[in-house]
Amino acid sequence: MREVAIIGIGQTKVHEHWGLSIRDLAGKAIFAALKDTGRESVEALFVGNMLSGLIDQQNNLGAVIADWIGFKGEAVKIESACSSGASAFRAGIVAVASGEVDSAMVVGVEKMTDAAPTEVTSALATAADSDWELEQGVSFVGLNALVMQRYMHEYGWKHEDFAPFSINSHANAVHNPYARLPFSISTEQYNKAGMVAAPISLLDASSIGDGAAAALIVPLESVRGDKRAVQILGSGAATDTISVHSRKAPLFLQAAYLSAKRTYAQAGMSHEDMDFFDLHDAFSIMSVLSLEACGFAEQGQGPRLGLDNEITPKGGRIPICTRGGLKARGHPVGATGMYQIVESVQQLRGECGETQVDGAKIGMAQNIGGSGASIVTHILKIA
Amino acid sequence: MREVAIIGIGQTKVHEHWGLSIRDLAGKAIFAALKDTGRESVEALFVGNMLSGLIDQQNNLGAVIADWIGFKGEAVKIESACSSGASAFRAGIVAVASGEVDSAMVVGVEKMTDAAPTEVTSALATAADSDWELEQGVSFVGLNALVMQRYMHEYGWKHEDFAPFSINSHANAVHNPYARLPFSISTEQYNKAGMVAAPISLLDASSIGDGAAAALIVPLESVRGDKRAVQILGSGAATDTISVHSRKAPLFLQAAYLSAKRTYAQAGMSHEDMDFFDLHDAFSIMSVLSLEACGFAEQGQGPRLGLDNEITPKGGRIPICTRGGLKARGHPVGATGMYQIVESVQQLRGECGETQVDGAKIGMAQNIGGSGASIVTHILKIA
Repeated sequence: MREVAIIGIGQTKVHEHWGLSIRDLAGKAIFAALKDTGRESVEALFVGNMLSGLIDQQNNLGAVIADWIGFKGEAVKIESACSSGASAFRAGIVAVASGEVDSAMVVGVEKMTDAAPTEVTSALATAADSDWELEQGVSFVGLNALVMQRYMHEYGWKHEDFAPFSINSHANAVHNPYARLPFSISTEQYNKAGMVAAPISLLDASSIGDGAAAALIVPLESVRGDKRAVQILGSGAATDTISVHSRKAPLFLQAAYLSAKRTYAQAGMSHEDMDFFDLHDAFSIMSVLSLEACGFAEQGQGPRLGLDNEITPKGGRIPICTRGGLKARGHPVGATGMYQIVESVQQLRGECGETQVDGAKIGMAQNIGGSGASIVTHILKIA
Repeated sequence: MREVAIIGIGQTKVHEHWGLSIRDLAGKAIFAALKDTGRESVEALFVGNMLSGLIDQQNNLGAVIADWIGFKGEAVKIESACSSGASAFRAGIVAVASGEVDSAMVVGVEKMTDAAPTEVTSALATAADSDWELEQGVSFVGLNALVMQRYMHEYGWKHEDFAPFSINSHANAVHNPYARLPFSISTEQYNKAGMVAAPISLLDASSIGDGAAAALIVPLESVRGDKRAVQILGSGAATDTISVHSRKAPLFLQAAYLSAKRTYAQAGMSHEDMDFFDLHDAFSIMSVLSLEACGFAEQGQGPRLGLDNEITPKGGRIPICTRGGLKARGHPVGATGMYQIVESVQQLRGECGETQVDGAKIGMAQNIGGSGASIVTHILKIA
């Protein structure tokens, strides 16, 4: 397969976009990505989306968005719950790397805020096991709360030890014009936040939203010498049991480990080569588990990275969520994986201002679907 | 890209499978396909499905099915309404052809009959344009009825002229043990059938159902000499406007034309080389429009092929729907594209008994999503 690169990126603010339909949102991100490249056409369109059927009463979203942007080529939707964005990105990579097409536009899009909150909660729960988890009455945040509770019990951490993850994401979002919650929070606020599903508080949980993010993938050889091009060094996906209770080690993200391992092998690198890690902080506990599974911390020691100030963009050993993460940039579920890619490209291009990681040349993005059931990892490098 | 082939196929009967969950159905088809090959593992799983989120309250179906079959690798769902099956098949082809993986299992699966009929009608309508078609109160069958009405008006055909399509599909289904409606119908029955949305009668419309069909794709070089292997000569996808009213020529399936054109070019062939055509007879009018767009008939002359007995497996110029088609094998929407592939393989292997096309060496399958918005075409050849 040939090497591939990202040549254009675009995104909308994550927001309550009540005046924009799902196709409007996707179109805005796609046209922004095209404008970023100076190109006017693409050969294939891959859409990452989870909930358009349930919330927007619209399936066939590939064709809907192709139509909206005036495109008649191949267009499909890829769905793997909250990792739909990265799964679509991976499909775009394979399409271009294989030689099947010479350009692929990938857009992650989700529109969630028109629906009632209970409807959104039910829709999100479809990421878990409908027959064996949801039948018991557990919600998606409830499932993650069980994992966090067990983690605290097993390794002796307190709730307050998770504060740095949320604080870091919020602090970084302040400098991201596309973020949903661009305000900082204090340790005191974190410790006082109301519980959603104990021990997950409002400030441990990411915010849903409406948004779209897009990237154009082309062969690397076609953009040699372009200093804004970002090469894709590795792409790996793996799965784990859909039910958390089926796992022998429910505190270890096996699919994160496997997908990162494949991606490191493709790139010929290890976690030590990463200048930043755009991880999937849907809940604070997921940040911890991702860092551990990908080699940045020993099992049970993830919170230490936060407490030791190692996750911040300025001086941290492994800066995470430098544009706000799911927690504060927001989590428009099927779009999130593409926000991570777009933000990683911004870091590698040196466009992140106050939260720029100095000298960032290589970064990793990881997108998680369900309670760790589908995990997709990418490693990017400034070309 | 390297050449690829299908080495194993599996399917369930299309039926009201009230005792089987969506994962049971998919598992049965996958294990049957593995058994057909003698292999025990795969490297990637692609799931074609349209409605699991809406009807089964289950998203993340790639991970759900991977878990069920005991697989930890890459697994995603591909959705393009009723062409989800062929879109997933195409993703599997590109994954193997590129060298990214050495085997890809593709399963199309849908479970629809547990839901109330009105719920299914609403769910199917999400294949059309939610904002600009459904808002007007039109159903999916209603949209197709408008197209059929216009076609009859424009070219002077009567409703009875469409009878041979339904009669052929039903006659062929009698000999398919996996068919939903394995009984023959007469011209008189066709002409007396009650209207669903005039001029589409009950015997013009395909039947929904529960079912799964799977195929294992591997590199052609790994199965050289295997007389049951079926080579994939061409794969092409295209899109058209999502709304029928946006088309300049609503009686011409532009996306069928484009996707067939690409597929013919890849295979180095034309429609004249096809020994059969497994087309998407969701409604009789769609059979006619597909035949015309793919070169088998002049525009406006498609019904002539049926009236002249050219579509039957024994002696027809271009046999269609030789296992019963959507009309009588049944239309479990996201699975249909994979049923077409499985049935085409059966034809090429010479396993179709009473409906075997004598000497069939090359065949085409075409799967349609929405009212012609997403169309995916494949050409297969006995290796």
